[in-house]
Amino acid sequence: MNYMPVADVLRGKTAVDTEVTVRGWIRTRRDSKAGISFLAIYDGSCFDPIQAVVSNELNNYKEDVLRLTTGCSVEVTGKVVESPGQGQAFELQATDVKVVGWVEDADTYPMAKTRHSIEYLREVAHLRPRTNVIGSVARVRNCLSQAIHRFYHEQGYFWVSAPLITASDAEGAGEMFRVSTLDMENLPRTDEGKVDFNEDFFGKETFLTVSGQLNAEAYACALSKVYTFGPTFRAENSNTSRHLAEFWMVEPEVAFADLNDVAKLAEDMLKYVFKAVLEERRDDLEFFAQRIDKEAITRLEKFVDSDFAQVDYTDAIDILLQSGQTFENPVEWGIDLASEHERFLAEKHFQAPVIVKNYPKDIKAFYMRLNDDGKTVAAMDVLAPGIGEIIGGAQREERLDVLDSRMRAMNIDPEHMSWYRDLRRYGTVPHAGFGLGFERLVSYVTGMGNVRDVIPFPRTPRSANF
Amino acid sequence: MNYMPVADVLRGKTAVDTEVTVRGWIRTRRDSKAGISFLAIYDGSCFDPIQAVVSNELNNYKEDVLRLTTGCSVEVTGKVVESPGQGQAFELQATDVKVVGWVEDADTYPMAKTRHSIEYLREVAHLRPRTNVIGSVARVRNCLSQAIHRFYHEQGYFWVSAPLITASDAEGAGEMFRVSTLDMENLPRTDEGKVDFNEDFFGKETFLTVSGQLNAEAYACALSKVYTFGPTFRAENSNTSRHLAEFWMVEPEVAFADLNDVAKLAEDMLKYVFKAVLEERRDDLEFFAQRIDKEAITRLEKFVDSDFAQVDYTDAIDILLQSGQTFENPVEWGIDLASEHERFLAEKHFQAPVIVKNYPKDIKAFYMRLNDDGKTVAAMDVLAPGIGEIIGGAQREERLDVLDSRMRAMNIDPEHMSWYRDLRRYGTVPHAGFGLGFERLVSYVTGMGNVRDVIPFPRTPRSANF
Repeated sequence: MNYMPVADVLRGKTAVDTEVTVRGWIRTRRDSKAGISFLAIYDGSCFDPIQAVVSNELNNYKEDVLRLTTGCSVEVTGKVVESPGQGQAFELQATDVKVVGWVEDADTYPMAKTRHSIEYLREVAHLRPRTNVIGSVARVRNCLSQAIHRFYHEQGYFWVSAPLITASDAEGAGEMFRVSTLDMENLPRTDEGKVDFNEDFFGKETFLTVSGQLNAEAYACALSKVYTFGPTFRAENSNTSRHLAEFWMVEPEVAFADLNDVAKLAEDMLKYVFKAVLEERRDDLEFFAQRIDKEAITRLEKFVDSDFAQVDYTDAIDILLQSGQTFENPVEWGIDLASEHERFLAEKHFQAPVIVKNYPKDIKAFYMRLNDDGKTVAAMDVLAPGIGEIIGGAQREERLDVLDSRMRAMNIDPEHMSWYRDLRRYGTVPHAGFGLGFERLVSYVTGMGNVRDVIPFPRTPRSANF
Repeated sequence: MNYMPVADVLRGKTAVDTEVTVRGWIRTRRDSKAGISFLAIYDGSCFDPIQAVVSNELNNYKEDVLRLTTGCSVEVTGKVVESPGQGQAFELQATDVKVVGWVEDADTYPMAKTRHSIEYLREVAHLRPRTNVIGSVARVRNCLSQAIHRFYHEQGYFWVSAPLITASDAEGAGEMFRVSTLDMENLPRTDEGKVDFNEDFFGKETFLTVSGQLNAEAYACALSKVYTFGPTFRAENSNTSRHLAEFWMVEPEVAFADLNDVAKLAEDMLKYVFKAVLEERRDDLEFFAQRIDKEAITRLEKFVDSDFAQVDYTDAIDILLQSGQTFENPVEWGIDLASEHERFLAEKHFQAPVIVKNYPKDIKAFYMRLNDDGKTVAAMDVLAPGIGEIIGGAQREERLDVLDSRMRAMNIDPEHMSWYRDLRRYGTVPHAGFGLGFERLVSYVTGMGNVRDVIPFPRTPRSANF
């Protein structure tokens, strides 16, 4: 059998009149009065299904073909011909239709209807990749992840895996999940009556990581250019469209780099991956532009062609104060920018992606490099029109004495960070990096409004199904 | 400044006599009587450091250059010249040496000595990437991961992320870590006095996944060809050189595929990634062949050129029984093959990678497809000379009635697996996949005897440092 993915047939990878076999699932069946059926067969290899034209002369036309419903799996052999119909270049003249798997009850099959609410689809996350929308998300998500790996590989970065289970807390930021094998019904106790974590699997209390950055720093201080791409966790009780308890992060970390270097890296990376998805997944983007967000393609095209704006936090505050705009969250030097501020800057003021730099030290983490003004740190956020913050990064504090005093000021015991301090004691270097929430990126590209719909099996408060 | 990675300079990417700046860490300093110092500068971009020749005519020769010790970070500018010395094509005639970071105390710097025991290096996992051996491991690990993504991408597979936190247990196999936000000192209780997991973050008891397979199946039954590449966990108290509590797995899952299809996929994938590492990381492989395992290169070359053997489990048992060999673990039909059996088959009998197929159903998981003999399932293990099992896979049971009876026989409540059963109720298809332990792969390629040394920050019983 000459098996072919639907994508290859539709792209004309085989000569007209060749006999091929495609395998997939029925999207729709339509019967003509002339005794011909039209099957739309989808196999996930691209957005479009292929049309198979089936004549009633086939032996199993009545018993099988006329009973096919959405979701049935089939193997269809036929001759590739140019399609007279609109919307597809090629179709199949079926010579054989083999039913591989029936749908138990077409009336109760959850994916039978063509349109479902996106909320309903979350309840059937094991079947929703069979829909147009979630199938497109999956292909775009894959395209973005491949492009990210390719970008860093081409630039000489090494992918490193940061540990997921950790005994340390990256920023003192974010609630963490405890990881344990202790018997909850029968907890071991210390002499003082406390839970005895010395009896736990790792001999101490451990958690799921909130960031791989500190570990990536150790590798950047040896191999110069590294990045992580792996899962991270937040045990925050946030039921919003932008939060997941489990999500994927991309965190490059670069030795001998300052804030401007990683600002440029962020711009280069975003443009690279957006170009990739514009080239490779046009079919899915067109669907998003039609059904989900009419800006889906133009937003990316504009982004790729734009010059990023850069602005100091202090100047950004002035812009907001002088904007004449009323904000829900009052603006003054020292505040963390709220989403409304970020979007005003990117969408109204600069009308371009904008990198805000040098934030007040008091609203940022201990490891960010203190600027000479003593008030700000070399932090940056990349704000994108249409979504707000998409990347957060910083130059790291490479001076041991400054790092120590920042830790003390923030009530972090330098003793607990002794391995991190070692990186500054032995051949310290300026270095910088950033974090990109992968699901926010997929959400930005697809126009999907809720990050729960851009990860296969979302984990959120009170929900860990499948 | 014309900054360049050391790798680019050594590969001749810049013309002789050009002035470039390299940035990295001092590996060694050697001073000649004639007042010239030779600095070996390493930046991680390739195995070799670059040699900078520094004359005592430099302003800071005495104050800085003569005080440089292993691990100091520097920025060295100089003219690229052909190297008269052995082992490198190019070197730098330094015109400027800038010290970026000193080593606090050269005598106590843990990485100062050139050779450390591999066990000691684990205790300084934050500094060990600065050594030859762990630096090489990191580059090879990156090369393998990039090649894996590239292989699947080229073959039309989509990367999907399986959830890490899960309420279900993939195989009933393997101890799991509990994930919880409950206050351990003050656990909520049900009316019956049990721990009330309804109060936990996800509203029920949750764990870290042991495999992404079941989730990948849901996506394969929609997009046809998918793979996962992500972390998985085992809470087993195994202190061996082959076990980690946290490790990375590659799990392809293919619709409309049988056991033979994924046996071929496994062979193609392994050969592809081994070819990639032979081409791209020759420098590191040569180091492994010299210092760690003299077969490091020849083993891969042989593997790439070999024809895989395939043998039924039942025939493999006969081969072992008739071998005249004495095994520690007695051989009879029905046993799980021990490492000694696997290695005999691959190294002595077939002298090639071998795929053992169709294992007794009683030693395999419920989801593996029952063969027509009623005694065996369509499972496979790929055994590699020098390591034994490197891949385990199976065709999945796609027939709902057989799946249900297998679940009941193994005391798994079909109710708990209702979403997994749905994949068989609606357009079921034959499908198959396998799992590759990524650290075992890196271990096989590098010859590193312990998987703790091929992952940046290993997690093992009583150890979760950094």
